[in-house]
Amino acid sequence: LEESRVAEVEDLVEGLHEADTADLLESLGREERQLLMEIMGAGFDPEILPYLDETVREEIVEWLGPAGFAKLVQALDSDDAVELVQELDEDMRIRILAALPQAYRRVIEESLSYPEDSAGRLMQREIVAVPSVWTVGETIDYMRVTDSLPDDFYDIYIVDPRHHPVGFIPASRMMRSVRSVRLDQIMEEDMRVIPLDLDQEDVAHMFRQYDLISAPVVEKSGRLVGVITIDDVVDVIDEEAGDDLMKMGGVNEADFYDDVADTTKSRFTWLAVNLVTAVLASAVIGLFDATIEKVVALAVLMPIVASMGGNAGTQTLTVAVRSLAMKNLSEINASRFISKELIIGFINGGLFALLTGTVAWLWFGQPDLALVIAAAMIINMVVAGLCGALIPLGLEHFKVDPAVASSVFLTTVTDIIGFFAFLGLATFFLL
Amino acid sequence: LEESRVAEVEDLVEGLHEADTADLLESLGREERQLLMEIMGAGFDPEILPYLDETVREEIVEWLGPAGFAKLVQALDSDDAVELVQELDEDMRIRILAALPQAYRRVIEESLSYPEDSAGRLMQREIVAVPSVWTVGETIDYMRVTDSLPDDFYDIYIVDPRHHPVGFIPASRMMRSVRSVRLDQIMEEDMRVIPLDLDQEDVAHMFRQYDLISAPVVEKSGRLVGVITIDDVVDVIDEEAGDDLMKMGGVNEADFYDDVADTTKSRFTWLAVNLVTAVLASAVIGLFDATIEKVVALAVLMPIVASMGGNAGTQTLTVAVRSLAMKNLSEINASRFISKELIIGFINGGLFALLTGTVAWLWFGQPDLALVIAAAMIINMVVAGLCGALIPLGLEHFKVDPAVASSVFLTTVTDIIGFFAFLGLATFFLL
Repeated sequence: LEESRVAEVEDLVEGLHEADTADLLESLGREERQLLMEIMGAGFDPEILPYLDETVREEIVEWLGPAGFAKLVQALDSDDAVELVQELDEDMRIRILAALPQAYRRVIEESLSYPEDSAGRLMQREIVAVPSVWTVGETIDYMRVTDSLPDDFYDIYIVDPRHHPVGFIPASRMMRSVRSVRLDQIMEEDMRVIPLDLDQEDVAHMFRQYDLISAPVVEKSGRLVGVITIDDVVDVIDEEAGDDLMKMGGVNEADFYDDVADTTKSRFTWLAVNLVTAVLASAVIGLFDATIEKVVALAVLMPIVASMGGNAGTQTLTVAVRSLAMKNLSEINASRFISKELIIGFINGGLFALLTGTVAWLWFGQPDLALVIAAAMIINMVVAGLCGALIPLGLEHFKVDPAVASSVFLTTVTDIIGFFAFLGLATFFLL
Repeated sequence: LEESRVAEVEDLVEGLHEADTADLLESLGREERQLLMEIMGAGFDPEILPYLDETVREEIVEWLGPAGFAKLVQALDSDDAVELVQELDEDMRIRILAALPQAYRRVIEESLSYPEDSAGRLMQREIVAVPSVWTVGETIDYMRVTDSLPDDFYDIYIVDPRHHPVGFIPASRMMRSVRSVRLDQIMEEDMRVIPLDLDQEDVAHMFRQYDLISAPVVEKSGRLVGVITIDDVVDVIDEEAGDDLMKMGGVNEADFYDDVADTTKSRFTWLAVNLVTAVLASAVIGLFDATIEKVVALAVLMPIVASMGGNAGTQTLTVAVRSLAMKNLSEINASRFISKELIIGFINGGLFALLTGTVAWLWFGQPDLALVIAAAMIINMVVAGLCGALIPLGLEHFKVDPAVASSVFLTTVTDIIGFFAFLGLATFFLL
């Protein structure tokens, strides 16, 4: 593809949108990527950087060195620059900040002083704020002559003398109003204000809940300090929904772009936890080895009970994790959710007890074995429903992310209960 | 809470944003919900409807009847109305359309004629489109006097005489330009145009990829017919990310709000599929019952091999499903992904072979048993990595949603290979 046809590659890249160039860089292998970077050389557009995946970007930062990277960063909007800089590791971040001109560095450093994943980090400082006594005409004239405003904006904020936001006017409404109209006559007063330290997950929830396009960010005192726009929130929504999926699957969010060593390492941790729980479940089986020796059919059938419990529990767990993330489930309606899950566990448990019992009977011709597996199935599926609901609710209550740890706990419980109920009942009734 | 204090409840609801009222309705039980609806009565704000979950909304539709619901729908913007109507079942949809005034019905019916989940359904028909020869002043005057424009908009589209979009101007830029400037001097020509039949998932990808706020929708001929704005896309992004999570967990997207009967039924299907695969895995164990009878330790240890394979495979699967959804993984870089997963499977397989072998040795004091479980572990984890990558890629290739069916296939494979490798090797070497 790109051996020696440098000129062709140059032409190709030139015609691409920055986002597409970023995709191209991501889809290449490490060596090809460096080759392409060399070809692009000084023509490398800084706007490509925000679109790159973190891991790929780090590679490029290393390759460019702090000075080279700092030069590119300066060409970006402050919120994009903050996003890039905050994702670097401590050491590199300090070196890059040192390479930036002082005024620019101060802006970045102030943003970095807000807690990670807070509204302060997401917001843009450039904002259009005008007093309510102005007319539409005055405002438009002000906007025409003022250079420090953001390139594009959606809402104009109206502030009182203390610089507290009191309302907003969408740009399109401002444009359609007659010049002599006073702003307080057309402004929207029903406005959602975001505190500087609000978690980005809650920011996303507000945007989603109220269909916002942009929202003002205020300090504790109520002073307007910035604005968050929906494009930043889309990234957050994407990230968080994907994060939950990845966490439930036991992988790191950056897994796809991490190199083999990092991926192997991060997955190892999760699998090691799983090994401990699997050994625990095996220990439960070990308690009944004498029973199994006499009735081998038990060894054949026991994974069915555990597997059905695990799957039924995962269903409940998934619904709980998603509903908690979307703030549909909370402590108010938790008891309704739990009782619904218990009923479902009981009904489906009963149905699958019947099915599995029949299969076991036909297979081994032992009616008492069929009864034992049926009873174990009901027990395990009711427990699965209960734990699938209680575990994430409990983790959420103790401020632990329910997506990340729930499924280990859950399958440990369903394996142990599954094996214990089935083999225990068998020992009691079949021997 | 709300027994007789009707006036208090009325006051409370009045002060709420529509989205919050919707949440309140959702969080109540069926009877309380009806009570609240009765209290709100004629004061029920139609804007609440789009915020409601589908299942709750259906209940309200049934309760209001077609005529009552049609009356509320008319008060909404056309794209919101389409969204509500399309989610109803066939029968109710026809009755509600019949109850709408003819002009309004025609607009809704035309939108419904576009394929489900396509750009045509998402778009809004109200749009600001002006010729490029106009000046800023002419455009602003036009917008001031024209009533049929949308309430708020972000971009003004410039069209040629055939009504094909040739560029756009953000509202804020228009407002800041001098009245005498011609539109083609300030318009942005680098514009992403969305075909009417593009799938909503691809629409979302375009918005995300190019950080769009709104984008024009065109017919096959290139004529501008509507606009999609980011707030509609946020809903799509939310929906699709959540959908993948729910599908991988084996539950329906509406699970949380469905009643017990519907939830039980939809979960039953998934569990029934799982029962079949669990019985298949048991049949594999059944092949080796003579071996287990002689070495009971095998029954104790075999779930470890299967469980580790299942978890390692799920890790790969999760990354593949998410990367496919985000269009980071495609047939171009599939082979790199597969070989990465194979290497990881081999490394982690080797590490866990060592760990599990050691555990088995210490536990049962049989070095040959330890070797057998170690070998089975490597085999199963490499197969898990391979299948975790190949199954979703294969499903995607055949246009089947990889999120929905992958994990059944995967755990079937890892269970069967896990049991077969472990018990097969044991039969061969230990007897």
